Amino acid sequence: MKHLLSVEDLGREDIERICDRAASFSEMADREIKKVPALRGRTVLNLFYEASTRTRFSFELAAKRLSADVVNFSASGSSVEKGESLKDTVLTLGAHKPDAIVIRTPWAGAAELVSRWTPAAIVNAGDGKHEHPTQALLDVHTLRERLGSLDGSQVWIVGDVLHSRVARSNIIAFQKMGAHVTLAGPPTLIPRGIEAMGCEVRYTLDDLGSADVVYALRMQNERMSESWVPSLREYAHWYQVNGRRLGPAQVLMHPGPVNRGVELSAEVVDSPQAVITAQVAAGVVVRMAVLYEVLAHSEAPARTPEGAPA
Amino acid sequence: MKHLLSVEDLGREDIERICDRAASFSEMADREIKKVPALRGRTVLNLFYEASTRTRFSFELAAKRLSADVVNFSASGSSVEKGESLKDTVLTLGAHKPDAIVIRTPWAGAAELVSRWTPAAIVNAGDGKHEHPTQALLDVHTLRERLGSLDGSQVWIVGDVLHSRVARSNIIAFQKMGAHVTLAGPPTLIPRGIEAMGCEVRYTLDDLGSADVVYALRMQNERMSESWVPSLREYAHWYQVNGRRLGPAQVLMHPGPVNRGVELSAEVVDSPQAVITAQVAAGVVVRMAVLYEVLAHSEAPARTPEGAPA
Amino acid sequence: MKHLLSVEDLGREDIERICDRAASFSEMADREIKKVPALRGRTVLNLFYEASTRTRFSFELAAKRLSADVVNFSASGSSVEKGESLKDTVLTLGAHKPDAIVIRTPWAGAAELVSRWTPAAIVNAGDGKHEHPTQALLDVHTLRERLGSLDGSQVWIVGDVLHSRVARSNIIAFQKMGAHVTLAGPPTLIPRGIEAMGCEVRYTLDDLGSADVVYALRMQNERMSESWVPSLREYAHWYQVNGRRLGPAQVLMHPGPVNRGVELSAEVVDSPQAVITAQVAAGVVVRMAVLYEVLAHSEAPARTPEGAPA
Repeated sequence: MKHLLSVEDLGREDIERICDRAASFSEMADREIKKVPALRGRTVLNLFYEASTRTRFSFELAAKRLSADVVNFSASGSSVEKGESLKDTVLTLGAHKPDAIVIRTPWAGAAELVSRWTPAAIVNAGDGKHEHPTQALLDVHTLRERLGSLDGSQVWIVGDVLHSRVARSNIIAFQKMGAHVTLAGPPTLIPRGIEAMGCEVRYTLDDLGSADVVYALRMQNERMSESWVPSLREYAHWYQVNGRRLGPAQVLMHPGPVNRGVELSAEVVDSPQAVITAQVAAGVVVRMAVLYEVLAHSEAPARTPEGAPA
Repeated sequence: MKHLLSVEDLGREDIERICDRAASFSEMADREIKKVPALRGRTVLNLFYEASTRTRFSFELAAKRLSADVVNFSASGSSVEKGESLKDTVLTLGAHKPDAIVIRTPWAGAAELVSRWTPAAIVNAGDGKHEHPTQALLDVHTLRERLGSLDGSQVWIVGDVLHSRVARSNIIAFQKMGAHVTLAGPPTLIPRGIEAMGCEVRYTLDDLGSADVVYALRMQNERMSESWVPSLREYAHWYQVNGRRLGPAQVLMHPGPVNRGVELSAEVVDSPQAVITAQVAAGVVVRMAVLYEVLAHSEAPARTPEGAPA
Repeated sequence: MKHLLSVEDLGREDIERICDRAASFSEMADREIKKVPALRGRTVLNLFYEASTRTRFSFELAAKRLSADVVNFSASGSSVEKGESLKDTVLTLGAHKPDAIVIRTPWAGAAELVSRWTPAAIVNAGDGKHEHPTQALLDVHTLRERLGSLDGSQVWIVGDVLHSRVARSNIIAFQKMGAHVTLAGPPTLIPRGIEAMGCEVRYTLDDLGSADVVYALRMQNERMSESWVPSLREYAHWYQVNGRRLGPAQVLMHPGPVNRGVELSAEVVDSPQAVITAQVAAGVVVRMAVLYEVLAHSEAPARTPEGAPA
């Protein structure tokens, strides 16, 4: 694996290999010394065109725990604000020879484009409404830790599927791992024709009881002002995942940050069936596994036979 | 010591132990290699809900000189701005398993609350008007280096005591170390009943000559618009510490940054009796000692017997 | 060399020594392990009063590849915004005992002033319209790699010389290395009397063909609103370096970021004669060489005989 651009590029065995390695890093996270020298001397560039403290933080920690050097480059306050093109920015930053670029942008397909402009390994940390592959990987990892396997499981993804790159990446990844995926939400927020991805669509939560896993999406405030839903209260009335709708054996997931009282009620957020905090913890170890995957086996040793491999 | 939440939790022997260790780190700061491997592999999270470049900088440097990894998390631009609660933020960040969280917030008591929500060691870097314990420790350290001992010394704290967490923490710490504390300032800025903390109160600087140490507080511009004082000029007329009021043997302290011409005249800031720069230098070594205190003896080795202790 | 304040302080042999060391670091940048332990345990402070993600990024990477610890201090959001003077900020930050301070300010001469207030090594990363010495060094390095030597070469610097610290530093550096420098641009943007620096002045690009190297300066949008030029279109008509004006054997340089279609046409930016990306790559290795120069031979070992030199 040279890059991680899309979940579509991954086979089931790739996903399993990454999750297995994440599990081994997970044991390390409980030790006093949380670092391994696997990527010592490598440089990871976090290139973020959208504010995302959580994802940036998780990648930064992952790189540091692999002993890589991390440099954060935020588009705000930079020459990007003076109108520099994505290509010129990437060519410029690429000239500093980072080993990997972790990139988040509001533009679908940007990560793939960037991978053509620089020899660095590219990790897509979210490209517009297109994909967010490390989120899908950490969600699969969390479910494997909880359920053992996703084969034959029923996963419902509930809420604003239309604007969600998390939903897109997870539909693909859950299916690759053998799950059956159902999407549920208001008709305005479920894309027409999305059944073509192989999932079912429901416009009510009436049959939510059939799910083994309920994955609630974040309901963004701005959607209300954009008239996608009449009001957050109306949305919550019909689509909130709460103690009335959720059975005690169902696993509850959410990509965070949660709007308590909107897509989730406070009681279910704090219940033991919620694995939201486990998802966050999985974020670091899965991102370690991804950086390890794209860098530890990179061709760099060929260029420098005397270099010490990880 | 598992956390540093409040100076009130510290005994005199705790303060002395921390200051002694800071003194040993101080020798190191003059060496070419300023680092020790004491906290190698540990992660320190700086979680700042208030802009404070100086304090954040000092903690960052302290952690790096102990070879810890540091990740800065600023509330601005993060999901905190989208309305995430302190508890959800701490649960999320805690899932990344930082060893210590250095936290500054505008809310009194927040550091103590946070310590209940995460297994990480919590260091209070300022919680509203409540406390700023590392400032008090670095001030005690600075005075011990200058005077040898605080026992029996007279310390005057001058200015806006009402809004000052520095004043609160220092009243407690100086008294624990054997000093007699007098507060002086305009009646509007001295809290009613503060004598209950064991200190004297004066509304003029007429007897300032009796002080061994004069600790001037920062006069914030916004206090004038809030009508706590008639004008900064009026304040300076009655309460400015300057060459006319200060004797040459008195030690002058200030937590920085100084408003020259308001609470201090330029001449006394630049005089040899001012230890303001020494306070800043003490900041790094005292924070190193605090991080060492809460982390080097933490229970982590028990969880991982094979882990290499510092 | 204790500091790098100005190109004027450097002899030709200093420039050559720095470029030679940069060349040796350059080989390392292609290896898997990009780090050397030369400055392990040293602290480099990036003190930026102007937003400059590129230059800050380049210095940060340079310091990290030398294994130094880096702390970024940005004036925005800090006590500087509360009105703290440059001197007080430097005294405060200097009390943390950084080994080097990399400073960028909008004030000509600030770097030199700062060098009197702290024992740290000062590297001028741009002081107002005065100088930007590391830019000049990286430009010399890029040309030496391309041409072998600058002796006897003809270098044209084109555009807004008046507001450009890059132009000032490069006029001096290129001449020290044996080049003949010609400045070209609209009369409003060429300082009166600049011939005294030893260069020629032209107000048209008619003779651009005589140049071995064409160095285009960035045309800042704000110059138009300030009426230095009638319009960007008018400027581009007379002074844009494009395929019509540039011959295939001429080397094209630009300090970045490029305004495509203003000072340069897109075709020449992407042509093989442009060394703009090589300039960026040179930025890291030249800054490594500068930090090495001011720190590796500093007097620190004298203070600590047991300290391990690089």
